[in-house]
Amino acid sequence: MTSLPGSPLAAQMDRIDRARTARRERYTLRDERITLSHGSGGKASRNLIEGLIAPLIGNDALNVRDDCAVLDGSVLRLAFTTDAYVVSPLFFPGGDIGSLAVHGTINDLATAGARPLGLSLSFILEEGLETDVLRRIAASIRAAADAAGAPIVTGDTKVVHRGKADGMFITTSGVGRIPEGVSLSGAHVRPGDRVLLSGSIGEHGIAVMLAREALELEADIRTDSAPLHDLAAAVLAAAPATRCLKDPTRGGVATSLNEIAQQADVGIALDDGLIPVRQEVRAACEILGLDPLHIANEGKLIAIVPHEASQAALAAMRAHPFGRDAAIVGEVVEGPEDMVVVRTSAGGARVLDMLVGDPLPRIC
Amino acid sequence: MTSLPGSPLAAQMDRIDRARTARRERYTLRDERITLSHGSGGKASRNLIEGLIAPLIGNDALNVRDDCAVLDGSVLRLAFTTDAYVVSPLFFPGGDIGSLAVHGTINDLATAGARPLGLSLSFILEEGLETDVLRRIAASIRAAADAAGAPIVTGDTKVVHRGKADGMFITTSGVGRIPEGVSLSGAHVRPGDRVLLSGSIGEHGIAVMLAREALELEADIRTDSAPLHDLAAAVLAAAPATRCLKDPTRGGVATSLNEIAQQADVGIALDDGLIPVRQEVRAACEILGLDPLHIANEGKLIAIVPHEASQAALAAMRAHPFGRDAAIVGEVVEGPEDMVVVRTSAGGARVLDMLVGDPLPRIC
Repeated sequence: MTSLPGSPLAAQMDRIDRARTARRERYTLRDERITLSHGSGGKASRNLIEGLIAPLIGNDALNVRDDCAVLDGSVLRLAFTTDAYVVSPLFFPGGDIGSLAVHGTINDLATAGARPLGLSLSFILEEGLETDVLRRIAASIRAAADAAGAPIVTGDTKVVHRGKADGMFITTSGVGRIPEGVSLSGAHVRPGDRVLLSGSIGEHGIAVMLAREALELEADIRTDSAPLHDLAAAVLAAAPATRCLKDPTRGGVATSLNEIAQQADVGIALDDGLIPVRQEVRAACEILGLDPLHIANEGKLIAIVPHEASQAALAAMRAHPFGRDAAIVGEVVEGPEDMVVVRTSAGGARVLDMLVGDPLPRIC
Repeated sequence: MTSLPGSPLAAQMDRIDRARTARRERYTLRDERITLSHGSGGKASRNLIEGLIAPLIGNDALNVRDDCAVLDGSVLRLAFTTDAYVVSPLFFPGGDIGSLAVHGTINDLATAGARPLGLSLSFILEEGLETDVLRRIAASIRAAADAAGAPIVTGDTKVVHRGKADGMFITTSGVGRIPEGVSLSGAHVRPGDRVLLSGSIGEHGIAVMLAREALELEADIRTDSAPLHDLAAAVLAAAPATRCLKDPTRGGVATSLNEIAQQADVGIALDDGLIPVRQEVRAACEILGLDPLHIANEGKLIAIVPHEASQAALAAMRAHPFGRDAAIVGEVVEGPEDMVVVRTSAGGARVLDMLVGDPLPRIC
């Protein structure tokens, strides 16, 4: 994206920058102690990050607030990302902390349009962890990395005293190569763009919660955890003008779209009836009083593309095994700015906000 | 390093490869539960890594067992590394978990001859952590990153329930660019090479231990935690034929040199009287029954260089603020293979082995 000083685009970017700075300055952290909601990915997380971590650590690369940094290696552009995994329990229907960590890092790279060159793997183990649990997780990591063609190239293992961790935490980082000409960011989104979702939502969060809590709910819900780099590449090939890709994990689709609306200083309107939700997930959410739009996914991709490219992007998604149930679920609008609205089939509308905390902590 | 099939060098590399494979196959993990010694960096760690993690996750890049992976980005070579930091307490004389994490990752990149392009930062926070503690750590991270010219470009923050972590764990990863022509590895070491050490040893481990334990010891010992990429660059400029660089952290100089001896299938002989140890550290080690060679350092560099380049490398180290007390402390010998021996001034010799566990757990 080229922008000349004085051009309408440059003026727009300036306005977005100023709005972004002003918005960040509104975040403050008044809490004296860390609470679970600070790890939720929602508003409390934003307060922690914008009110404490970013002012201390921020720089131009970090300040873009995409899920993946772009490093300029002079002759090629690199994507670089990291995530800690603290999911409880370690095993859940359809996956475990190991495959989840591999998929999550691949997916953050995919949001920059990058394919993984290599992943790093850092274990923090609790004294007393059954070795066999570690063995099963390591095998799962290997299988997930092999299946995705994403080698684990470096690692570290630490152990802490019994009672000082919760079995196992994993941090994975990833480095990927960004193809020439690809430049994706939430900040590129424009009014008129369409919002695509690669499939049904809420499965990961609900699957982990059902595995954790001794609930009376009997439902066959498995995590959707999957590597999305191929799906992302297919979308970019079909719709090179794609503005941004995002994997709606912690905080769900609601949080991801609110972040994009704030990055680009636009509004986003979703159509309730178009959002794919499996019947079992909808039923579980109703019983638990949760909105599927706030539940984490680990194998879904949001793509925001110009209107004229949206059918091509949708067809590319549907042609991929991980995108069979893809749908165009909404559009980007001028305003209200920095806000996501859900339009109901009855003609009403409700504001879809980020939550302060997470209804389901430690699902990733 | 070029090696033609059939050349003496190729035959030597083949022999090393076979020996390495045979040696790895000897490691087994019989323990049913993780113990603190599995995180020590010593033999128990090797059993865990070679007996469980590597067989499941290993690949050509990981199998080299350097502290830092080399990624081939086609047109440039990248260094990529990760480390988890679980040090207790979070603050200790001369540093804290934040500056330690930044320095540690920069130093792992430096062992590949790379300068950092960017670092990632992943926090795992315990519910109830005082926000002010996080604020101080974040400020320390920023200061360390700025001072080293190593920007934090991406990050993640998770929170776990009270009692499920120990205040804070940090995982940092780093990506660096390796200058053309630089190829460092423990596997490159040859008999006749000299072993250089950039300064006095044992300060980090003893400083953390004194901060942790309510000991009667009154000693002014501060961590040596420091970023070593400039020092590494100075050594490589003065001695381009340098075989390998290593930062002797967990398990100390003893563990690092044993790892190199095993990587290259050679022996290493140290001269006891040449190893710089500060008087306070020596005294503390005597009281505690510890060998300074087993204690972790976070600001020291081991360089193994051809004999003819050793004086140039030493002069370059001594000209740098972090290498003022550098010394040539030993040499690489034909045998006994895979072993480190310390020659005493009285003419004796003792085997310097890796420990099974760590006398000082959680010092990084």
